[in-house]
Amino acid sequence: MSGMAKTDVDAASLPETTRPRGRPRAADREPLILEAANQLLDEVGYDHLRVQDVADRARVGLATIYRRWPTKQALVIAAMRRAKAEVVRPETDDPRADLEAYFREMANQILGPKSCFVVGFVTALRNDPELARVFRESLLAEMRDQLRRPIARVVGDDDPDLDLRVDIAPAFLIFRTLIDDRAVDPDELALRLCALVVGSVTH
Amino acid sequence: MSGMAKTDVDAASLPETTRPRGRPRAADREPLILEAANQLLDEVGYDHLRVQDVADRARVGLATIYRRWPTKQALVIAAMRRAKAEVVRPETDDPRADLEAYFREMANQILGPKSCFVVGFVTALRNDPELARVFRESLLAEMRDQLRRPIARVVGDDDPDLDLRVDIAPAFLIFRTLIDDRAVDPDELALRLCALVVGSVTH
Repeated sequence: MSGMAKTDVDAASLPETTRPRGRPRAADREPLILEAANQLLDEVGYDHLRVQDVADRARVGLATIYRRWPTKQALVIAAMRRAKAEVVRPETDDPRADLEAYFREMANQILGPKSCFVVGFVTALRNDPELARVFRESLLAEMRDQLRRPIARVVGDDDPDLDLRVDIAPAFLIFRTLIDDRAVDPDELALRLCALVVGSVTH
Repeated sequence: MSGMAKTDVDAASLPETTRPRGRPRAADREPLILEAANQLLDEVGYDHLRVQDVADRARVGLATIYRRWPTKQALVIAAMRRAKAEVVRPETDDPRADLEAYFREMANQILGPKSCFVVGFVTALRNDPELARVFRESLLAEMRDQLRRPIARVVGDDDPDLDLRVDIAPAFLIFRTLIDDRAVDPDELALRLCALVVGSVTH
């Protein structure tokens, strides 16, 4: 759901962004800003994140951030998309293996370091319609597309339960992190979820 | 997850409680108090529920409530268990039909009148370890038992994914109510969830 991984950012090693580079030095700081936002999201959650704190951590002015992302919501969603893009693997010939790898990544993140963030974010979605709108139109839609492709390759594009299958693993992982504190092995869980989501075609 | 239904309570028609009736008049008021709590949970959510408001609505003194339920958490869980008990159907010879009926009830409640309550309650679980403990040991455990029985009758007691299957429908419904605002038909959804949860045995 949220950004999936975090790495130390070395701005020089990052690919150039595709936006016009009228402000080359500012553009270079985009990854640093988004990385700072991701760190703070994990540390304090969505509710307590302040754009000023992101600016301080990235060592940029507040105006630099607001020039590119006019709202906190836009900044947060951009940060989450960036973190997610870092861990999305290319598709292979084996859709089950792709799905399992995706679930493993999600399980390790949502049941692990992102657990706190997920709880705060879910609450924020209900209290902040603008955040919910941006989230649904970008990250949620992208995540569903990425899950739908391998699932459809196994069960078929015309499977009537495709939408339902797409949501099962994220739903299960969020349920467990919100409601239950039993320890589970994320890798084992990913395997079982994969079997359940595409193990059978019910029509 | 939460109490499932709400009916007008006629104290005289309710079965006697099993607790010793040293205070017969107070014991009679137990259903009224729990019903008042359920109404307020639906109206204002867990966070904003005050025990004093429950006392006012049930027309009892605050002490009458605290004598029986020493904390707000205990009162809320008792109210949720009562609401749930009102709608649990007896098991039949057809475990698939039982499961589908259960899912239909859950879907209609969680995607409908209980939606607001669910969001507040999920947040409260994280902020209130005592609530989480009482909830997990009573309501969550009971709900899982009730789901496990019909599921096990279809897929077998030794199914390695039994725990996972048990959580799928509640997880999916909570995910949809928390994250997504697409309209869905709860009855149709219950049918599809049932097919997915017990439609196949993957081992």
